[in-house]
Amino acid sequence: MADRLSEDGWRELGYVYVNIDDCWASMDRDKQGRLQADPKRFPGGIAKLAQYMHDRGLKLGIYGDMGTHTCGGYPGTTLDLIETDAQTFADWQVDMFKFDGCYSNSSEKALGYPRMSKALNATGRPIAYSCSWPAYQGGLPPKVNYTQLGEICNLWRNYGDIQDSWDSVLGISDWFYENQDVVGPAAGPGKWNDPDMLVIGDFGLSVDQSRSQMALWAIMAAPLFMSNDLRTISSEARAILQNKMIISISQDPMGVQGKRLLKEKNGIDVYWRPLSDNTSALVFFSRRHDMPYRYQTSLSKLNYTTGSYKMFEVFTENAATLKDTSEFVVSVNPTGVVMFYVSAPSVRRHQFR
Amino acid sequence: MADRLSEDGWRELGYVYVNIDDCWASMDRDKQGRLQADPKRFPGGIAKLAQYMHDRGLKLGIYGDMGTHTCGGYPGTTLDLIETDAQTFADWQVDMFKFDGCYSNSSEKALGYPRMSKALNATGRPIAYSCSWPAYQGGLPPKVNYTQLGEICNLWRNYGDIQDSWDSVLGISDWFYENQDVVGPAAGPGKWNDPDMLVIGDFGLSVDQSRSQMALWAIMAAPLFMSNDLRTISSEARAILQNKMIISISQDPMGVQGKRLLKEKNGIDVYWRPLSDNTSALVFFSRRHDMPYRYQTSLSKLNYTTGSYKMFEVFTENAATLKDTSEFVVSVNPTGVVMFYVSAPSVRRHQFR
Repeated sequence: MADRLSEDGWRELGYVYVNIDDCWASMDRDKQGRLQADPKRFPGGIAKLAQYMHDRGLKLGIYGDMGTHTCGGYPGTTLDLIETDAQTFADWQVDMFKFDGCYSNSSEKALGYPRMSKALNATGRPIAYSCSWPAYQGGLPPKVNYTQLGEICNLWRNYGDIQDSWDSVLGISDWFYENQDVVGPAAGPGKWNDPDMLVIGDFGLSVDQSRSQMALWAIMAAPLFMSNDLRTISSEARAILQNKMIISISQDPMGVQGKRLLKEKNGIDVYWRPLSDNTSALVFFSRRHDMPYRYQTSLSKLNYTTGSYKMFEVFTENAATLKDTSEFVVSVNPTGVVMFYVSAPSVRRHQFR
Repeated sequence: MADRLSEDGWRELGYVYVNIDDCWASMDRDKQGRLQADPKRFPGGIAKLAQYMHDRGLKLGIYGDMGTHTCGGYPGTTLDLIETDAQTFADWQVDMFKFDGCYSNSSEKALGYPRMSKALNATGRPIAYSCSWPAYQGGLPPKVNYTQLGEICNLWRNYGDIQDSWDSVLGISDWFYENQDVVGPAAGPGKWNDPDMLVIGDFGLSVDQSRSQMALWAIMAAPLFMSNDLRTISSEARAILQNKMIISISQDPMGVQGKRLLKEKNGIDVYWRPLSDNTSALVFFSRRHDMPYRYQTSLSKLNYTTGSYKMFEVFTENAATLKDTSEFVVSVNPTGVVMFYVSAPSVRRHQFR
């Protein structure tokens, strides 16, 4: 996968992290009590793997678990081992660390997640810190303290694991947008809600559904982790994952998480995300299962201020200039999206002579 | 669509019926009490449209409803109008007739469906007769009499309408296979269970799911009605719908409906259909949503008799020769299939000297 990322144009688009999930470790710690890699799966060890990534301009992410065991039954990180394990990952030159939460109770998590944050920082190595903590606490206040999460974690999993099916993608998306007023404000540069991986290019999504996941994740300012096999990816999936305009919307430096504006009875949802320089993104999504639906609206109906706007559809690359009051129609495929990048408003001012 | 069918290689594969569903009719019958086409949608009338099809080697199907109104509110065919409407369709040179069942009760259906069969036969024109009757009666005995259906109808809808989603495809497939011992024996040449249209090439199925619908419908000996736009079909969907080996399995002249042999706890189902000349088809389907699953079996475990068999995988066109006792492994994608055409057994007999 690292070779594909570096050779097939992914790295330049920002896909630079290669993340190992559970089951990488040996069942036993070494004599010094340190985690060690499974010698069969990683005969050269994790440090060598990290070097392989760095040699290609990539970064390595690794996985651990706050608890006695990982979810897969491998050695966990109990409270007394947090500093040891943080130092091990730093020694290996790891760049991201996901801290899962199987086999620990709420009190241990409340101690362990902040302590790991301090321990990672104390190593002096920049390691992006992904916390599964909120997903284990139901994802919502008062059990989850998003202010604290933003201070100690760079990203966090709020909700259950994604599966390779449209039901799963839509269920997760709906959870995040239904709770957008609670979870949305928690996000910003360096601190992100993580609705889990993209399943584009796997086996369960149609082309329209793949576009929808990409669009809904970009509006959500979600981290974009791929889960597919880059060696066998279809051209359609590649085009979606490598769409520069969507990636640029997703990675907007202002880092404001977008929201659902409308959930219409006709099955059309409208999503919006404010972007840098007074630009924005708009997504029209269809929950229908019958036919493409022609949805009519105008920018002023979507709370845009007076002015004229350039709109670029990100998949077709069609462009148009529209006044805020101009009615327009988008044809949205079943389970599909139409997604626009919208320029800043251009206002014709009163002319003084 | 007719032009595409005749020019893009569909007709030669057997896709010859162009079927109009509800909403084709004018809201009013003519002065003689006959149905007439909506003059806006069909300015030339249905007879001209039928001629257009026939000129291209195609056939025309039309829709009616046993009841006071069609499901969409257009004029229905009450008991007193059955002979009139059958004669109208024959006069128009129609080739298939679907008789829906909105706005009538069970007693009226019990009279109307057989009467329409007689009326169509009495016209002297061969018109394939599709009955929605069983779908309105729950699809199962004792409310549904499959012996009678086989005598009066050429195909029948047993179950609800399909939608453009994987949930819908799988739900329908599961209903037919769960009731295979009841509905399967009803099928045979000239009398078919109809699980509704293929939604391959629409918006809701992944490539793997599209292959699965094609395979599961072929094992079921289901009529293959497409629902997609042939002008904009993707190359992947076209390849699946135009797969000659699957079409040949689907259209096997023996006309025996296949069945599910196994529903494994690991999420793999095995389906089998006996075909002419002692050949057969096998489908391995995965209900999983995680990763491709390697399923190991042998032909003898699937009730094949002693001998060696040639197996052709219909999508990859890979071929192999296997003894009944040889173990083999198929890798089945999530929501996908691996489908084999299996030759007749070749048995090495004892040599007398």
